[in-house]
Amino acid sequence: MSFQLIEYAEASPEVRAVYEDIMATRKIDWVNNFWKALANHPQTLKRTWESLKEVMGPGQLDPLMKELIYVAVSVTNNCNYCIGSHGAAARKAGMDDSMLGELMAVVAMANETNRLAIGYQVPLDDVFKGAAMESSGS
Amino acid sequence: MSFQLIEYAEASPEVRAVYEDIMATRKIDWVNNFWKALANHPQTLKRTWESLKEVMGPGQLDPLMKELIYVAVSVTNNCNYCIGSHGAAARKAGMDDSMLGELMAVVAMANETNRLAIGYQVPLDDVFKGAAMESSGS
Amino acid sequence: MSFQLIEYAEASPEVRAVYEDIMATRKIDWVNNFWKALANHPQTLKRTWESLKEVMGPGQLDPLMKELIYVAVSVTNNCNYCIGSHGAAARKAGMDDSMLGELMAVVAMANETNRLAIGYQVPLDDVFKGAAMESSGS
Amino acid sequence: MSFQLIEYAEASPEVRAVYEDIMATRKIDWVNNFWKALANHPQTLKRTWESLKEVMGPGQLDPLMKELIYVAVSVTNNCNYCIGSHGAAARKAGMDDSMLGELMAVVAMANETNRLAIGYQVPLDDVFKGAAMESSGS
Amino acid sequence: MSFQLIEYAEASPEVRAVYEDIMATRKIDWVNNFWKALANHPQTLKRTWESLKEVMGPGQLDPLMKELIYVAVSVTNNCNYCIGSHGAAARKAGMDDSMLGELMAVVAMANETNRLAIGYQVPLDDVFKGAAMESSGS
Amino acid sequence: MSFQLIEYAEASPEVRAVYEDIMATRKIDWVNNFWKALANHPQTLKRTWESLKEVMGPGQLDPLMKELIYVAVSVTNNCNYCIGSHGAAARKAGMDDSMLGELMAVVAMANETNRLAIGYQVPLDDVFKGAAMESSGS
Repeated sequence: MSFQLIEYAEASPEVRAVYEDIMATRKIDWVNNFWKALANHPQTLKRTWESLKEVMGPGQLDPLMKELIYVAVSVTNNCNYCIGSHGAAARKAGMDDSMLGELMAVVAMANETNRLAIGYQVPLDDVFKGAAMESSGS
Repeated sequence: MSFQLIEYAEASPEVRAVYEDIMATRKIDWVNNFWKALANHPQTLKRTWESLKEVMGPGQLDPLMKELIYVAVSVTNNCNYCIGSHGAAARKAGMDDSMLGELMAVVAMANETNRLAIGYQVPLDDVFKGAAMESSGS
Repeated sequence: MSFQLIEYAEASPEVRAVYEDIMATRKIDWVNNFWKALANHPQTLKRTWESLKEVMGPGQLDPLMKELIYVAVSVTNNCNYCIGSHGAAARKAGMDDSMLGELMAVVAMANETNRLAIGYQVPLDDVFKGAAMESSGS
Repeated sequence: MSFQLIEYAEASPEVRAVYEDIMATRKIDWVNNFWKALANHPQTLKRTWESLKEVMGPGQLDPLMKELIYVAVSVTNNCNYCIGSHGAAARKAGMDDSMLGELMAVVAMANETNRLAIGYQVPLDDVFKGAAMESSGS
Repeated sequence: MSFQLIEYAEASPEVRAVYEDIMATRKIDWVNNFWKALANHPQTLKRTWESLKEVMGPGQLDPLMKELIYVAVSVTNNCNYCIGSHGAAARKAGMDDSMLGELMAVVAMANETNRLAIGYQVPLDDVFKGAAMESSGS
Repeated sequence: MSFQLIEYAEASPEVRAVYEDIMATRKIDWVNNFWKALANHPQTLKRTWESLKEVMGPGQLDPLMKELIYVAVSVTNNCNYCIGSHGAAARKAGMDDSMLGELMAVVAMANETNRLAIGYQVPLDDVFKGAAMESSGS
């Protein structure tokens, strides 16, 4: 399938409202292609943007941390667009070349050990359950 | 398939040497099941431990950051053992309930938007390529 | 990691409000475990429920269609809880044994041909691009 | 690796027989690249076509429903060729822009909640098991 | 969802015919649960068995090789049943502990380097395309 | 994100040492792009090469077998670079067109039956556990 990218000029008022919130929130004067594609289904554009704004907004994890996690998932899922867009966002949030190298190393290593744990069907140690229980209660 | 978990008492000298390095490095007096399963293939045990020790060791990303990335990949790959073991490690490294909630939210959101970008086959914005290029050169 | 399931009795007002909307929307007097787990992070509970309510609500695709798509993705991602909960929802929406059998057959076949197309790195036929273009414009 | 696309003119009699059945079944006068690639291994071409013809043939789920499920799996697996070919087939079977938008929204949402259920390791509610049991018996 | 396992005694004639072919082909007097579950949709049972019989039957790759490939995919997809059933089949076909250890190591390593190649978005070397082209022509 | 490919001429001594070992080990006079990309993070380059050299080196499974397993995982994970590079390596190790066709058929079939076993949530037969136990002890 192919999709049109909906530009601001041709967008409906509800789509323009989302574009304007994206630009205002990010303090930039343009909207990236991801949103222009979602604009083919305005409800999805609006809902996804509002969710992303909340999830990536201020919290206990700083912006860089959240972008690195986003890249980690995108690499694991093989999403080129997301690696590119969130990789750029991570750069903007302060990711330097060493951090990038370590991020890739951890993501790759996790993908390797995930399969070893799955392949060897390793039973979870009781102490981990216990420790986690406790902590999650605190 | 089922696998034996190789305990220290029944382990070969080379396996014991790895177990001892794991305990010394982590300053604990026990070894978790993952390593006891890998011990069925000593070369894999040794190589994997040495790689993990290097990848998760001191660097630009702090230990908590690395554990959160590990959990993010493990959740995306649906590895229960790894969610449990690295979740416990993240707790130990300082992950509180809010961080855990945000981690899950970012991981889930990334899995959602990855599929939107893939499904709508969104072309990467030139500005992202550019920006990344530049940064990676710096 | 282990998580507490937050019961209504012990829930905060904001969590209770979501539980009540879930029960009212679904015309049932209980809340399933998925929501009791998300309640560990109230913002995620609220945002996820509101998104799900919108996405699975009235539209061009009927409820059964949407549940079958949900099960198809859940089987592909190997999510046992989701196969169980959306499988039950699909049953409630009218999925009979034949539909279930056909759903599984299509999901499995798609997973097979996906790998054949990926492995043989098949280039997309121009006619498909064309046809889709056109349609998405209509 | 690269693969030749086997054209009708250069195809063996057994490959031509499959191409002819594809064209006759679909009432078209051409064969798409997927089959031309599989023709590199005639047994796989024949077996895959016969399976697809049976799975996507008349049943309880209508053709549009089956194509939407096919696209849902292909988006989840990130198979560009399959998204393109089955997306075009879904269009042909009646998928309009609203249905496409809802399909993408459901697929993305399922990928998100799959990870929340996996990450929070939610135990399946007994009532779901029960309800499904019963139904599957009916 | 839950599914009944259809035993021979309660099976329809067409299901029994497949069970008998499975037992005759494998020279055993029982049928494993996978087939008893597929029997809930007889066409899928018959089609899947006939495909598997052809795919895993005599060819250029010996039975052990095919079972190892089956386990490699099953570990990557996190399919416990398939790891168990094809792991047992690989044992029967001659997989010893060393082969199993090497299989796991290769599967895990491939999962690691796959993510490094994806994350670093490495462009394919022309020489590989060339070399493959040539070979596929021979 | 975009990455530079580090050529030998511009590489640091530690990176050159790895490139030289790759060329010496493979008896070739060039290095493929995967390593030139990893060179952006020298530790990852060195660790990954040393692991790969050990994992793909002499053992119970011959080189062709290991390359086929590598391709099987790469196709399942949709890693184009890896399908191309290890596909070429498999050719070099002796994979002919029939073996390639059978490899693709087994990989695709495994991806199909993995989802059937997952979707139908098939319980593992006791005899498989037993048989595997026994063998793993031998």
